[in-house]
Amino acid sequence: MGEAKGEYHHLVLAKFKDEITIDQIDELIKGYANLVNLIPSMKTFHWATNISKENVNGGFTHIFDSTFESAEGIEEYVQHPAHIEFAALFATAIDQTLVVAYKPTLVNL
Amino acid sequence: MGEAKGEYHHLVLAKFKDEITIDQIDELIKGYANLVNLIPSMKTFHWATNISKENVNGGFTHIFDSTFESAEGIEEYVQHPAHIEFAALFATAIDQTLVVAYKPTLVNL
Repeated sequence: MGEAKGEYHHLVLAKFKDEITIDQIDELIKGYANLVNLIPSMKTFHWATNISKENVNGGFTHIFDSTFESAEGIEEYVQHPAHIEFAALFATAIDQTLVVAYKPTLVNL
Repeated sequence: MGEAKGEYHHLVLAKFKDEITIDQIDELIKGYANLVNLIPSMKTFHWATNISKENVNGGFTHIFDSTFESAEGIEEYVQHPAHIEFAALFATAIDQTLVVAYKPTLVNL
């Protein structure tokens, strides 16, 4: 995550509906990534699939991690028309989602 | 997250039981962070509280982000006796948890 430009993370966990194809997921990921170009406070976008074998992933298969420079930047993003429009499209493709936002604190003992 | 030394993330979401105090949570966070000193494949440990106002956090209030250099490193961590011992203690303090592991892919359009 050396590429992350912001200290604040907005993390979305998602499970896509069974009928959503890989190509459709790719298109949604591109649409999500493009929000960086539309919303000034959004600094970076990463995505991933879950590889945990611990079987406590709550059914979530995909992770979307956006970074921001402040908590206010996250609020600007959430309320931005481009996010609202994309979120409505994204919502049609998913069975379940979970969102947390946070500023990680490093602990070195 | 410029401090993260590994590309692979092991992310735990947790909600502590109502009766668990702030001091007890602090002790658990120290115990979690100390795993970096006990488990060679675990490279960094960050923690945070959820600040999302979107009300889709699934009840989770805390985020714990550990980094690793490989997927195999995550497996070594999960199976390490120090992790198993700590996880058993941690489990006594939480109402619910969710774990995902992933290697983030940066998308720049």
